[in-house]
Amino acid sequence: MVMYGGGEAMGLADLYVSRAPLYFGGVEAEPERADLLVLGAPYDATSSYRPGSRFAPRAIREAAANIEFYSLRAGIDLEDYKIADLGDVVLPVSPQDATRRLEVVVTDLIDRYPEKLMAVLGGEHSITLGVFKALAKRVKEPCLLVADAHFDLRSEYMEEQYSHASVMRRIAETFGSDRIFYIGVRAFAKEELEFARNKQIEYITSSAARLLGTREVISRVNRWIKRIGCENLYVSIDMDVYDPAYAPGVANPEPEGLEPWMLLDIVFRVVKEADVELKLFDVVETSPPYDCGGVTSVLAAKTLLEVFAAYIARRMS
Amino acid sequence: MVMYGGGEAMGLADLYVSRAPLYFGGVEAEPERADLLVLGAPYDATSSYRPGSRFAPRAIREAAANIEFYSLRAGIDLEDYKIADLGDVVLPVSPQDATRRLEVVVTDLIDRYPEKLMAVLGGEHSITLGVFKALAKRVKEPCLLVADAHFDLRSEYMEEQYSHASVMRRIAETFGSDRIFYIGVRAFAKEELEFARNKQIEYITSSAARLLGTREVISRVNRWIKRIGCENLYVSIDMDVYDPAYAPGVANPEPEGLEPWMLLDIVFRVVKEADVELKLFDVVETSPPYDCGGVTSVLAAKTLLEVFAAYIARRMS
Amino acid sequence: MVMYGGGEAMGLADLYVSRAPLYFGGVEAEPERADLLVLGAPYDATSSYRPGSRFAPRAIREAAANIEFYSLRAGIDLEDYKIADLGDVVLPVSPQDATRRLEVVVTDLIDRYPEKLMAVLGGEHSITLGVFKALAKRVKEPCLLVADAHFDLRSEYMEEQYSHASVMRRIAETFGSDRIFYIGVRAFAKEELEFARNKQIEYITSSAARLLGTREVISRVNRWIKRIGCENLYVSIDMDVYDPAYAPGVANPEPEGLEPWMLLDIVFRVVKEADVELKLFDVVETSPPYDCGGVTSVLAAKTLLEVFAAYIARRMS
Amino acid sequence: MVMYGGGEAMGLADLYVSRAPLYFGGVEAEPERADLLVLGAPYDATSSYRPGSRFAPRAIREAAANIEFYSLRAGIDLEDYKIADLGDVVLPVSPQDATRRLEVVVTDLIDRYPEKLMAVLGGEHSITLGVFKALAKRVKEPCLLVADAHFDLRSEYMEEQYSHASVMRRIAETFGSDRIFYIGVRAFAKEELEFARNKQIEYITSSAARLLGTREVISRVNRWIKRIGCENLYVSIDMDVYDPAYAPGVANPEPEGLEPWMLLDIVFRVVKEADVELKLFDVVETSPPYDCGGVTSVLAAKTLLEVFAAYIARRMS
Amino acid sequence: MVMYGGGEAMGLADLYVSRAPLYFGGVEAEPERADLLVLGAPYDATSSYRPGSRFAPRAIREAAANIEFYSLRAGIDLEDYKIADLGDVVLPVSPQDATRRLEVVVTDLIDRYPEKLMAVLGGEHSITLGVFKALAKRVKEPCLLVADAHFDLRSEYMEEQYSHASVMRRIAETFGSDRIFYIGVRAFAKEELEFARNKQIEYITSSAARLLGTREVISRVNRWIKRIGCENLYVSIDMDVYDPAYAPGVANPEPEGLEPWMLLDIVFRVVKEADVELKLFDVVETSPPYDCGGVTSVLAAKTLLEVFAAYIARRMS
Amino acid sequence: MVMYGGGEAMGLADLYVSRAPLYFGGVEAEPERADLLVLGAPYDATSSYRPGSRFAPRAIREAAANIEFYSLRAGIDLEDYKIADLGDVVLPVSPQDATRRLEVVVTDLIDRYPEKLMAVLGGEHSITLGVFKALAKRVKEPCLLVADAHFDLRSEYMEEQYSHASVMRRIAETFGSDRIFYIGVRAFAKEELEFARNKQIEYITSSAARLLGTREVISRVNRWIKRIGCENLYVSIDMDVYDPAYAPGVANPEPEGLEPWMLLDIVFRVVKEADVELKLFDVVETSPPYDCGGVTSVLAAKTLLEVFAAYIARRMS
Ligand SMILES: [Mn+2]
Ligand SMILES: [Mn+2]
Ligand SMILES: [Mn+2]
Ligand SMILES: [Mn+2]
Ligand SMILES: [Mn+2]
Ligand SMILES: [Mn+2]
Ligand SMILES: [Mn+2]
Ligand SMILES: [Mn+2]
Ligand SMILES: [Mn+2]
Ligand SMILES: [Mn+2]
Ligand SMILES: [Mn+2]
Ligand SMILES: [Mn+2]
Repeated sequence: MVMYGGGEAMGLADLYVSRAPLYFGGVEAEPERADLLVLGAPYDATSSYRPGSRFAPRAIREAAANIEFYSLRAGIDLEDYKIADLGDVVLPVSPQDATRRLEVVVTDLIDRYPEKLMAVLGGEHSITLGVFKALAKRVKEPCLLVADAHFDLRSEYMEEQYSHASVMRRIAETFGSDRIFYIGVRAFAKEELEFARNKQIEYITSSAARLLGTREVISRVNRWIKRIGCENLYVSIDMDVYDPAYAPGVANPEPEGLEPWMLLDIVFRVVKEADVELKLFDVVETSPPYDCGGVTSVLAAKTLLEVFAAYIARRMS
Repeated sequence: MVMYGGGEAMGLADLYVSRAPLYFGGVEAEPERADLLVLGAPYDATSSYRPGSRFAPRAIREAAANIEFYSLRAGIDLEDYKIADLGDVVLPVSPQDATRRLEVVVTDLIDRYPEKLMAVLGGEHSITLGVFKALAKRVKEPCLLVADAHFDLRSEYMEEQYSHASVMRRIAETFGSDRIFYIGVRAFAKEELEFARNKQIEYITSSAARLLGTREVISRVNRWIKRIGCENLYVSIDMDVYDPAYAPGVANPEPEGLEPWMLLDIVFRVVKEADVELKLFDVVETSPPYDCGGVTSVLAAKTLLEVFAAYIARRMS
Repeated sequence: MVMYGGGEAMGLADLYVSRAPLYFGGVEAEPERADLLVLGAPYDATSSYRPGSRFAPRAIREAAANIEFYSLRAGIDLEDYKIADLGDVVLPVSPQDATRRLEVVVTDLIDRYPEKLMAVLGGEHSITLGVFKALAKRVKEPCLLVADAHFDLRSEYMEEQYSHASVMRRIAETFGSDRIFYIGVRAFAKEELEFARNKQIEYITSSAARLLGTREVISRVNRWIKRIGCENLYVSIDMDVYDPAYAPGVANPEPEGLEPWMLLDIVFRVVKEADVELKLFDVVETSPPYDCGGVTSVLAAKTLLEVFAAYIARRMS
Repeated sequence: MVMYGGGEAMGLADLYVSRAPLYFGGVEAEPERADLLVLGAPYDATSSYRPGSRFAPRAIREAAANIEFYSLRAGIDLEDYKIADLGDVVLPVSPQDATRRLEVVVTDLIDRYPEKLMAVLGGEHSITLGVFKALAKRVKEPCLLVADAHFDLRSEYMEEQYSHASVMRRIAETFGSDRIFYIGVRAFAKEELEFARNKQIEYITSSAARLLGTREVISRVNRWIKRIGCENLYVSIDMDVYDPAYAPGVANPEPEGLEPWMLLDIVFRVVKEADVELKLFDVVETSPPYDCGGVTSVLAAKTLLEVFAAYIARRMS
Repeated sequence: MVMYGGGEAMGLADLYVSRAPLYFGGVEAEPERADLLVLGAPYDATSSYRPGSRFAPRAIREAAANIEFYSLRAGIDLEDYKIADLGDVVLPVSPQDATRRLEVVVTDLIDRYPEKLMAVLGGEHSITLGVFKALAKRVKEPCLLVADAHFDLRSEYMEEQYSHASVMRRIAETFGSDRIFYIGVRAFAKEELEFARNKQIEYITSSAARLLGTREVISRVNRWIKRIGCENLYVSIDMDVYDPAYAPGVANPEPEGLEPWMLLDIVFRVVKEADVELKLFDVVETSPPYDCGGVTSVLAAKTLLEVFAAYIARRMS
Repeated sequence: MVMYGGGEAMGLADLYVSRAPLYFGGVEAEPERADLLVLGAPYDATSSYRPGSRFAPRAIREAAANIEFYSLRAGIDLEDYKIADLGDVVLPVSPQDATRRLEVVVTDLIDRYPEKLMAVLGGEHSITLGVFKALAKRVKEPCLLVADAHFDLRSEYMEEQYSHASVMRRIAETFGSDRIFYIGVRAFAKEELEFARNKQIEYITSSAARLLGTREVISRVNRWIKRIGCENLYVSIDMDVYDPAYAPGVANPEPEGLEPWMLLDIVFRVVKEADVELKLFDVVETSPPYDCGGVTSVLAAKTLLEVFAAYIARRMS
């Protein structure tokens, strides 16, 4: 805990008063000296069904302050690493403007801290476009592993091209549809399915993932990485990839999702062992107003921590 | 979406104002031209523990308006089929009167639309009695596949013979106890278990279902259908058959229930492939006031859609 | 209630099945033959604190379906009048586009039904700009009576000029600051207060209203109407004008608001007796996700009904 | 607190374990030795809008366990008096049967404890019919003071004659419409208003009560008591008589209700000082599932306690 | 808003990323240069009924971030003054230890910032003991104005002497019972009333306050200040002094409380105009888990701001 | 149901009024004649994150009143056995005092009812220390099987040695670290892991349990029992051992927990078949204020019933 004060002579207030600012992990770390970075993107203007993901960065920070930082998968205690919480990007209402803002801000942050893994906390899924564009400006051959119940491949949604429901369409159009690989997808409009099929986008539905098993899913991801020559990995986790039992607080709950232990096994091992290093990732679509018992925020925080732990484990191995 | 207006000269209001009535699927289809029918039965007067299933038809319609209509199991997009929402039956307080009302109304609807599959949205489980009676008046050799955590076989409950807790007892007494097959049952009074055993009613508990696996459960259903000579199938899905993690918003949550993917696999394949055609089905006992995060209503809508998709798939094959 | 069916031969389903579409007042009336019109504007993209007013039109319709339509103030039963619910305007995310859309749609509706009073159900307060602009295109010397805890006079808010917090600034700039009169205002940034004072905008704070009493407030409104030569009245009611005890479900709850009986007395008598006729009005900023016990939606419905009743009473006198 | 045990030799468990049964006031008193009686009537089968008053007796008992029993109005501490909680009447679903059951049970209790004031905790308002009938069988010239937002005078409601919305119609028909006096009424169908006017039923609306003031309201009640020759008073308090700000957790919240201090002043002084003694009273229509923050249950408990205190104060004076 | 970064060369992240730590008022001010101080005391271990006031400091800070800082009573915009949020005192479970901890910490803070008004945000009411003790160590003739529904004068509660229900008893015993003046009290055990009467503690019940009016209440406070020779004022506001309609989110809601406008008028004018200067104050007993719609936290923040504004106004006059 | 009355002559009230005290199982059984005992320990003073487990005993009793008592695993209907609900231990705030109180009370109860299995309903996990100490005073070679997401092995937590987070450390220090065996553990501070490893405490993480399967977990428990020579078993079930999907209403939800069917299979078979008899058990950490839909309380009640059923089944075999 960050204690208050710090003048020469210590008083009792210095000892016992905690400033308790709401940083991820509860500690104020200098970005320059941190191992890992967290950035909030509290944006939900295009949410069509259940808004509220704008509150997710705060709720996830609060959840993170109350869970353990030890990763059983990695055998690593993240308390031993410095996580700098950069704060929240201030975002305008217009989806296009918000996308542009995110792009320039994230580009700037990549330039400042090129060697540090950054997690972006959504906000709705539309934020991935700006963040991915920033990455694509700075690295070669980026690719995008998406965990989502949905394709988000509509040409537009509710008259909006920059909506959460179109974010992958924009990315596919700009960077090539082979750049995207889906895990857990299970709900879509026919238009999206046709686009995915026409463009030969790879995806593993949640029921396919259950049938194939963790190992086979991972090896398909690896084959895709090799096939497209991906050199820099971006992972985007839409919390609705989990079954609503585990993540009720999302904008668009969709039955028959993945169990957390399975998705986390897959993501952990891809990040730790795949032939390409993770450069950026996001965890999006948590909607605190619908998060009964707060379990979705806790799961989002846990998801973020397991990715961090996998990344550290890779570096150490 | 149904847009407002429709006079000769189109104005801007015709373009941009949506009448948005709360029909299942959001579209106002003529029953005569529809492929599938939905009827609400908002009745919960005998609910002893947690009332509120009277609000379920509305909540499920609202949930249906926000999920995709593509069925992965069927490879069919239900957006391509017309679903007519007939509205809600107006029901009196008395359970006996409500049962009679449902019987005559459903009989009338069967007569009007004999070739269309109708889904009845409860409401509590007591509604199944009236609906099944209507079917039994119009078809030969009906039988009833029940997905439920409970037997609902009490001779009476809280001094009431037409209660949700006695509905299968009434059906067994009237139509024969061999007409009923249970999946997922796991909680009952000794009186009910003894009745079930004495009458040799078939049932597969949730833990038995997990052990047997989907395939064996289906084949037992098929053997039962043959054994009793069932010619017309009715499926009744009490949402408490699912584990409370997946369906917290029910009148009587009971631990150790089924995972949705398993129950939906079973029901889908029975409807699509069994030796008997589905004539009517209901989805009952969703209780919106207890449905944190609204996930139970979404699962109820999904359940209904998968049954519809299985029915269409059977017709097409 | 709208019953289903209507073919020549009546069946039991015709008698007992209610289509129950969610129209205000529960009845599907033809706009052409209606006395009063209701239009929903489910927009909340600029809500900075607690979103959710997009759900208000539906929640208020539902509340209206469960309260009585008799007005004690008017001695009139609104059940005797036809209210046509036109549905909801489909609105894009961008605040500027949404404003334009509302302007053209409402203009079109004014042209179609020039003699009917229309109530617009927000949505956030930003919707008032488009609606007022439509009115200003069609009538002479419009003016705006605003019941609100806030001035909404910021030059911009969160980088957005079309925000709910700037809506009156835009109206004041376009139509003249003398066109606006506030009741119940009590929270503002210094920038807004200075603008109001510089531009000599009239306002009565909630504590001033309590001191002055209903009668004096009304007479000040009348003097303002005469002074500026207002010929067509628009009333805009931000639900946060009420104390949060009465209206907890708003985007920006602000203590020390008005009691409903007082505000309704004022608005009723202005609408019924002022020297200018009401042409349009809106009820905005109800936020159902924060509306514990649903009392805010009920109060919004009641507010709308009292304005309708005052309007009818004026016509009859 | 009722401590566990009570054998000869006291152990530590006798000292420190509380049996804590949920009796009103937390104490298990013998009815025979009690000064006051409480009876629960957990019935809500006819609730058309927001069910849940079946849970009210329990919720109000729990609230009562956590508030003080000292009455400032009476200058009396109810802790000094014995309150026996008789428990809950077991009620069937059918409204007519439930009414009959209540009638016979309450008659029996009046016969057993003729000298004790009994409070009946609803449940919905329909319970008043059975209770009043019981009283009318045992005392001469009973009359009924009703605090309610509604008349409950429909000839039937939703096809049901014994509904909460018809309870006063049944009483008026059976015992004479002059037997009823309303305080706080403000919402009704035209049919009810016409019945009230035709039958010259007396009522004071909530806005009239505010204008007249406590004293005048009380004197009108007294004049009515004299005029009709009432010899035994029954008071029925529908919690929706209060403004929804104070009592959000009711089945039918209706704006512009009374402040608790005003209604309690009126009821307290009528019970303490009117020319007729209170024989029975009820507090109905609390709906815990809609009672945000539990304030309605607390207010119901307080209402009950103030009536008890007024009754004791009358006896002592 | 505190923006991130601050190195020499400004990047886009410096412009658009907000660090957004949860300080009261949203700004990180140095205590040394601040005009006003805020300290959190998140303690609720003795809460017997509805715990959760430990979460109040955070909830009130969040509410404060979303309301305006202009005080109509003072004509002052608190945005023009620096408020330093010192953070939260880290408190042990034991009530006695927590009291001691608060005493030494607050003593230390008074010594550091002797000229600044500090607001302490509870936590439950027991925190007032430690804070008042600290003040009494540093100033002469302190006295305590308490706004509360309760006396909190039990000799002990649930076997605990340092409970919220005994806090004023401890203060009365230590500093003299004439040091305390109550406003809004209305619920107590007979033991407490007798203590208050025996010790001639002054109090004005909520119903007395309504009868006397603001002006008379203030003049009684002033007479008490003079009579006891108070030289340094401490104000303690238990949020349950307000009616539960306005403050549902409290540990012990008690009907018939004060309206906010009245209590704030009284407190404002006492702080601004009484013959003694305010040295410290607290706002306690907000319980966020029971705060439907968050209105209690907003009212607590507003209460704090009005006291600050009164203090500034006094200094300026 | 316990009916009211019981005098010689039965009246209708005797027939139809239920005293309905909130005993576990709904029946008031004499402890002396009971087969099984339930004791509540409503204590949550050291809960650091989400308090409320003080309400768990009541909530679990209420849940138990609404589920069936038949155990499918045991083939036994617990309705055939007498369960005496002893009530709740009255506990002071101080954790050390509460521990001592529980120790003496439970010791006393063991002495009174040495042959009966007692279930203790927490409250937070810290209660296990006092209960285990009581058992250790009366039986030889006790040991402790803990189902928990956490180790609870901190040397102290928030300055408190008797906290829920240190309970197993205190037990390990006092009785030997080999006395404890964990199932389902998955979140801990490094300090705890090191202590566990240094002391060679046995544990099976939730992911290990999934891999090993029920049978292997049970055989490891049996080997541990033999190795340490345990003669009397205590089982402590922290509800957070379940995945938050199944048990959202806990103080510290931790993702990737066990499915109820698996944990119940393990616990059932250990209790029924292990080489040592169960003497006492507890079910702790249910937090009703965070228990959306009430499913956690239902699962806690079910857990308790399955342990009871296993115990009876063992006795019968
Ligand atoms: Mn997505
Ligand atoms: Mn998605
Ligand atoms: Mn059922
Ligand atoms: Mn069931
Ligand atoms: Mn506004
Ligand atoms: Mn406003
Ligand atoms: Mn009524
Ligand atoms: Mn009523
Ligand atoms: Mn207090
Ligand atoms: Mn208090
Ligand atoms: Mn534990
Ligand atoms: Mn734990």
